[in-house]
Parts: sequence; structure tokens; C-alpha cells
Amino acid sequence: LPHVQAPRGGGWLLSGIICINILILGSALVSSNALTSEVTAALHRQIFLIVLLVLTMLWMIFYTVVTSRKDQAVLCKDSHAGPLWLRVGLLLFGLLSLIMDIFKIANYMGYLHCKSAVEVSFPFVQVVFLFVQTYFLWIHSKDCVQLHTDFTRCGLTLMLSTNLVMWMAAVIDESVHQLGIANLDVNVSNAIYRVSYGDECSCNCSHPFCDIFEKALYYLYPFNLEYCLFASAMAYIMWKNVGRIVDGQSCHSLKFHLKNVCLGPLTGILLVVAGLVTFIVYKMDIQKENEERRNEALLIHFIVNIVILSLMSGFTVVGCVMYRLDRREHVSEKNPSRSLDVGLLVIASMGQFIISYFTIVAVMATGASGNLDALNLIWALLTVLELGLQNCFIIKGLHRKPYVTTQDAAQHRNTCNFPEETEMSILMKSNEPSSLSSRHDKLSWKRRVLKDVCMFLLCANVILWIMPAFGARPQFQHLLQIKFYKFTMWAAVVNVGLPFGIFYRMHSVASLIEVYLVS
Amino acid sequence: LPHVQAPRGGGWLLSGIICINILILGSALVSSNALTSEVTAALHRQIFLIVLLVLTMLWMIFYTVVTSRKDQAVLCKDSHAGPLWLRVGLLLFGLLSLIMDIFKIANYMGYLHCKSAVEVSFPFVQVVFLFVQTYFLWIHSKDCVQLHTDFTRCGLTLMLSTNLVMWMAAVIDESVHQLGIANLDVNVSNAIYRVSYGDECSCNCSHPFCDIFEKALYYLYPFNLEYCLFASAMAYIMWKNVGRIVDGQSCHSLKFHLKNVCLGPLTGILLVVAGLVTFIVYKMDIQKENEERRNEALLIHFIVNIVILSLMSGFTVVGCVMYRLDRREHVSEKNPSRSLDVGLLVIASMGQFIISYFTIVAVMATGASGNLDALNLIWALLTVLELGLQNCFIIKGLHRKPYVTTQDAAQHRNTCNFPEETEMSILMKSNEPSSLSSRHDKLSWKRRVLKDVCMFLLCANVILWIMPAFGARPQFQHLLQIKFYKFTMWAAVVNVGLPFGIFYRMHSVASLIEVYLVS
Repeated sequence: LPHVQAPRGGGWLLSGIICINILILGSALVSSNALTSEVTAALHRQIFLIVLLVLTMLWMIFYTVVTSRKDQAVLCKDSHAGPLWLRVGLLLFGLLSLIMDIFKIANYMGYLHCKSAVEVSFPFVQVVFLFVQTYFLWIHSKDCVQLHTDFTRCGLTLMLSTNLVMWMAAVIDESVHQLGIANLDVNVSNAIYRVSYGDECSCNCSHPFCDIFEKALYYLYPFNLEYCLFASAMAYIMWKNVGRIVDGQSCHSLKFHLKNVCLGPLTGILLVVAGLVTFIVYKMDIQKENEERRNEALLIHFIVNIVILSLMSGFTVVGCVMYRLDRREHVSEKNPSRSLDVGLLVIASMGQFIISYFTIVAVMATGASGNLDALNLIWALLTVLELGLQNCFIIKGLHRKPYVTTQDAAQHRNTCNFPEETEMSILMKSNEPSSLSSRHDKLSWKRRVLKDVCMFLLCANVILWIMPAFGARPQFQHLLQIKFYKFTMWAAVVNVGLPFGIFYRMHSVASLIEVYLVS
Repeated sequence: LPHVQAPRGGGWLLSGIICINILILGSALVSSNALTSEVTAALHRQIFLIVLLVLTMLWMIFYTVVTSRKDQAVLCKDSHAGPLWLRVGLLLFGLLSLIMDIFKIANYMGYLHCKSAVEVSFPFVQVVFLFVQTYFLWIHSKDCVQLHTDFTRCGLTLMLSTNLVMWMAAVIDESVHQLGIANLDVNVSNAIYRVSYGDECSCNCSHPFCDIFEKALYYLYPFNLEYCLFASAMAYIMWKNVGRIVDGQSCHSLKFHLKNVCLGPLTGILLVVAGLVTFIVYKMDIQKENEERRNEALLIHFIVNIVILSLMSGFTVVGCVMYRLDRREHVSEKNPSRSLDVGLLVIASMGQFIISYFTIVAVMATGASGNLDALNLIWALLTVLELGLQNCFIIKGLHRKPYVTTQDAAQHRNTCNFPEETEMSILMKSNEPSSLSSRHDKLSWKRRVLKDVCMFLLCANVILWIMPAFGARPQFQHLLQIKFYKFTMWAAVVNVGLPFGIFYRMHSVASLIEVYLVS
């Protein structure tokens, strides 16, 4: 019996209740801070966040020092949990968040005379938290904890909800800053970007570098958002793995190599380069005061995005057809990491879906009049199409059995057991006309096409990630939606949707690597 | 093999994509209609809703006439799906929604000269839809469809998303109406309730009964919301059951009788009567212009709620202690209905949690000064406590094995098989000191206490359901939160949270009946 689930005790329920309560109290505090100018609300929020961070750190230290040291604490590790790319990503984003915090501290130094001690101390606490959490997740993300299970479950949901509340706070802070600027000067849409951190009317910076720090913070904050999401995902997986017993041996030793695959990566890299060049042109032109130049920049940006999305849709369709031709069995093993991957992919795609559908509704209701409106509409429609196709492609790909050659297959059967295969799937296997051995040589071109598709999509997702992550906001440059929905509402939609969209692209890259490996 | 899951085909993925797209397009259309005064946006929304309703009806008719008639279409029924209380509830709410639609039609008759044909025709389409859907769900809610599975899955998600979009549209319409009134006259908080349907500045009703219809509509709309949620839940269960094969025999033939249980029901009914009396007093006094009388009414309402919640928390704690004393095994059978029950319970409780935490944050930040503020805070804190405890009690209760006497147990073992019990749970069983036979007589007082707790909680949930469902809105009468969050934000929080809260109370009643039966 490889996957025995320990009976769920009270800790499971308690940890859920703790998570819900922290999340909702956190959202109430964070949004109340955004909506009112009461100073006490801001103070309460900072204290709440600091308490959360400190409690989580205490638990992590307790776990590292006490629980994990004991025999029997971690009998086995889940080989699917915390893969290398996720941990490296965490480290990278943690590093960038660290830089953000250092800039924040330097920036706050200029406001020392008019900020409260609690507010100034927050980035310090966060720096310590970043170190402790990144270390903890790097070492322990694969653990299937067997000891103090109730307490560990509660600790993990505490960690999960702390990261989600931090994420919420960052998203709402960002929106409020944008709104503050926009209210001052709604016509010069350029000004929307000049996000400023911590400038109240009565409080001026006492050293001359504040402006630079503030600009840098604007580019760094998306990485902090990603860090919070990564950490939440890993905490969730650990929570699912508490008390789980898996057989230690991992059957998948798939290696990444690009042998025989060249069309996909080549076109993909070309696309990235072309995208980067036009993106730089866009960033230069959009800052100009000249209305015509700005519209031209928007036009180029729209067209580039439409081209990328069309190519992606085409490639994805080819990939789905290949799935039909190169039929394989579905994996039926229980695997919390894969379920989470699929869930996150679908939830993260919601962000893009929401922005696109709101755009479609706005353009349809006002009636597309100019070139830009038409292109905007096409972009939104293509985004919806591409997201649907890509979700399909990745989800189907993740559920396929990895490709194994005949010798591999023989070894495979000996060393690994698939006890959860139902009789039905075994029946299906025997019904299928092509056997493993005959498939090996004949179908290799199909596998090559699949790998090409994966690599192309990967590159395309990278460029679609770079553009919004480094500040392309055509949603605010093209004023149609702002006029239709009023600025506040549209800013809320974009500021909630876009971080999800950025996360979606990154997550797709990771999932596509996995699909590449199994095809 | 009792629970063989058919391999998930493309239809499963496709139906998910359809659902997401309809939901997001729906939310974009519905909220754009709320935010802008463009006539085309309203028109698009109505057309979209009508198209959805018609498509869903066509599919339901196709299913009833073609799919379900064929042999092999429905090999087995899920005995847990669509229980009687749910279907009766659906029928009841369907009836009240029908009355609402008739009132709406009568109301629109007065505006015929200035409303578009599409808007006027909507309630007619909805009436037909109500009939078709209620009939469909009454007959087919237990089906485990085996034929045309892909098409059926898509049809069911279409039905699910249609109902959810209808729910969203109703919630947002209601909020907008309240907001419209509130903007006109924000100080006289009484006026917030005079919700009016369809009065634009330039369009007057042509017959004298409009006022009455509009008042009636205000009381009827929550039932329509519940109808949509019920139908969505049933569609979701049917979707989960597509392609599923369960063993036909149902082991649970538990009967409902109140033998030996009297303390719980008695105190519960007393509570309901007391609650009703004070509620009527509250409703009378709150309408008065006199500020002092209004505050007195609020005071009574707060105190009554606090008393009810304290009693509930106390009883729930007793119930949880009884669980500890009267240990039973957990049910390990797969059961989509139970998973959904638990999920809905937790999600629906979020609504109340959000309102309570927003209240707590507001009172804490402004500093509770008067009696009413303090009571408001205590009410919110007790709500959080009670929700947590009750969720715990119900979820634990639903996962316990039903009580069986020794003879029953013998029969039980013969007729039913529990093939999914893992070795671990069997091990645990043998470790437990008390065997079934010895437990039978000794523990009956514990079972009686448990049943008492269930009945009391049931009654308390009924009165907590009646008060908001019939128009108690202390959230708008006590102005603290409105002042703190501004009216728009607070109205959004309450208007999203309260329907969930009302649904939570109803759903708790249903779950408590089930807990009562198994204990």
C-alpha cells in the first residue's frame, strides 16, 4: 500500500479554520486601510502583519530545531513536491524581494521624522522573515511530516495565510498608489506610472535619493508578489503532504536535452528577440508627450501581441492534434503537486480572462470606432482563445504517462509498481492497437513535433511575461476602458488581474518544461 | 469494484473551459451594466442572459427526451445526490421565484411605454426556464449519466454557469438599487430600504399598483437567489456523477424520529418564538422616524442575537465534547455530495465571516464609544466564534459512521461492503477498547445529548435565517461601518456577504438534520 492516508484528525479542521480567519481578518484590515484615512487602521494593519510574520518565523524555527530533528518525524519525501525550478525561483524572487526591502528601508530613512516606528520597523522584520522562510522551504519542502501532525498542519496554514495576506497587502498598496496619482492628474496618462511610496502631503523626503528608490521599488514589487505566491504554493503542498506515506523511490528520472528539437526553440527565440525590440521601442515612445507617437507605440504593441498570440494558438492546435495521434494512457497516481499545478494554472488564468472579457464588453458596448479599438478587441479575443487552448494543452500533457522506451519500460515495470491503476485502465491498455515496442520508432516524429510545440510556447510565454512584468500597461494607456468603467473600477480589475496574469505566464513556463519532459 | 471512475475525456476539460468563460463574460457584462449608464451595455446583458436561458432549456429538453430515454444512459443512481429536502427546497424557492416573476411582469406592464422589448420579455423567458429546470432537477438529479458523457458534461456546466450568472445579476441589481436610493438620501437611513425596481427619472409607472409590487419584490428576491444556488449545487453534483458507477444499494435507511429527545427541541422552539417576537418589535420600531426608538430597536436586536449566539456556542461545545466521549470511525467512502456539502458550508460561512471581521476592524479602529458599538463588537466576535465551532461540529458529524445496533451491524456487514477501508482504519478499529456490542446500551445518553444539541442548533439556525431573510439589516441601521468604509464599499460587502450568510443558515439546517440522523 503506497499511499495510505492517515486519518484526518482535529488538526486538519483547526488548521483550515485558522487559515480562513487569518485570511478574512487580513483582507478586512488591508482593505479598510485602503479605504479610510484613519491612522489607527494603518497602525493595526502593520501590527497584524508583524505579528503574523513573527509567529510564522517562530513556528518555522520550532519545526527546524525540534520536530524535524526527531527520528520518525520525516519518514519519506514526496519526490513531486518542491521541484528544483520552484526552489530556484523562490530563491531568485526572495533575493529580489530582499533588494526591495533594502530600498524600502533606505527610502524610509528619508521619512524618519514623520513615520511611526511600527511602519519603519516592518521592512526589517520582513528581511528576517525572507531569510528564515527561504531557508525553511529550500530544506523542508519535500517533507511528509509524521510527527506533531496537528501542530505542523496549523503552522503550515499559518505560513500559507501569512504569505497570502502579504500578497493582498502588496496588491492593494500598489492599487492605492496608482489611484492616488491618477486622481491628481487623470488626463496625462503618463503620470499614472510615477508611483510614489510614502509621500504624504505634509511629509517630505530628507535625502535626495528618494525618487530613485521609488522608481526602483515600482519595478521590484511584482517579484515580491511572485515570491509570496510561490511560498504559499509550497506551504500548501507541504500541508497536503502532512501525514502522507509515499513509497520513497521516484520512477521519473527524465533528463532535459534539446536533441533533435530545433524548429520550436529557434522560432521561439526569434519571437522573444522581436518582442524585446518592440517592447523597448514601446517603452521609449509611450513616455513621450506627443499624442501621435504614443498612439503609434500602442499600435505596435497591439500588433506584436496579436502576432504572438496567433502563432501560439496555431502551435497549440498542432500540439493538441499530436496528442490525438500519439495516444497514451493517463496517469492515475495520486499526486498533490500535479493537482495544485492544474488548479493554479486555471485560477491564475482567470486574471487574464477577466481583463480580456471586460475589454470585450467595453469595446462592444461603445462600438469599435478606430484602428486601436479594433486591435484591442482582436487582442482580447485572441487572448481568450489562446488561454483556453494552452490550458487544454498543458492539462492534457500533465496527465499523460511519460514516454518510455522498451528497455526502459521493462526496467520500469520491475522497479516501480502502479498499484492504483484500476481494472478499467488495464482493460483499455490491452484494447489499444499499438503496443509500446512498436510505437517506439514509428512515432518519434510526433514526439519531436510535440517537443517543438512545447519549446515554442515556452519562449512565447517568457516574452508575454516580460512585457507586463517590466511595466507595459496598455490597459491604462488606451483610454477606452477607463472611460467606460470609470478609473477606479478599471484600476481594480487590472491591478487584481494583471499579477495573476504575470503569475500565469511564469507558471505556464514551468508546466511546459514538465510537459516537454514527459512527451 | 464499487467506485470505478471512467477515464476523464476531453469533455471534462471542455466543460470546465465553457464554465469559466461564461462565468467571466457574465460577470463582466453584469458589472459593466452596474457601472455605466450606457444603454447598449444593459441590452447586451439582457440578450446574453436570455441566450443562456434558452440554450440551457434546449439542452435540458434534449437530455430528457433523447439521452435519458435510451437504454444504458443511466445505469445507476447516486443515492446521496439530490436528497428530498434539497428537491423540496428547490420546488419551494422555484414557486416563490415564479411569484416574483409574475410580480415583475405586472410591474413592467406599467412601464411598457418606456422599456425595451428585450427587458420586458426577460421575466417571461425566466418563467418558462423555472418550470423546465425544476422539472428536470426533480426527475434527474440522482442520475449517473453513462451516455453522451462529453455532451452531458458541457450541458451541465452550461446549466451551472447560467444559474451562477443569474445569481450574480440578481445580487448586483439589488446592490445598485440600494445604492441608487442611498445616494439620493444618505442621512435618512430608513430610506435605504425603499428599493424601487425600474424607476428611471423620466419613466413613470402607468398603473397604481407599482409601489405594492416593488415592495413585494424586495421580499421575494432572496428566494430567487437561493433558488439559483440550489440549482447550481444540484447541477454540480450531476456533473461530478457523469460517468460514475456506484453500487445501487443504499445502506442508509435512517429514520427521523424525536423519541427521547426533548430538551433540545423545546429550548430551540422557545428561542425561535422569542426571536420572532423581538424581530417583529424590531421591524415595527426601526421604521419610525424617532431616532431614540430606532436605537432602542437596534439595542434589542443586538442583545437577542448575542444571546442566541452564546447559547449556540455553548451547545456546540457540549456537542464537540460528546464527539470525544462517543468515538466512532470515520466514513471513508467516496461521496461527492458530502464533499460538496462540506465545501458549500465552508464557502457560505465566508460571507458571515467577512461581514463580522469588517465590523470588528471598523469598531476597533474608531474605538467603541457607545453601548451600541460595544454590542456590535460583541455580536461580531460571537459570530466568528459560533461559525467556527458550528463548522467544526457539522463537518466532524458528517464524517462519522452512522450509529448501528448490534443486530443492525450484523445485517449491515452482510448486505453492504466497505471496500475502500484502508488497512490502517481496520487496525485502528481493533485497537479501540470498546466494541460495538458493549457500546450499545451504555452510551445511549451521549447519543441523546448529541441529538439534543443538533435539534437546538437547528432551531437556532432557523431563527438566524428568518431575521436577515425577512429584511433585518442592522448593518445599514447602525451607521458606524457606513461612516468608516463609505457607503459604496460597505454596501458591496454586505450585499455579497449577506446572501451567503442566509444560504449558510439554510444549508446548516439541512446538514444538521443529517448529523442528527447519524448520531
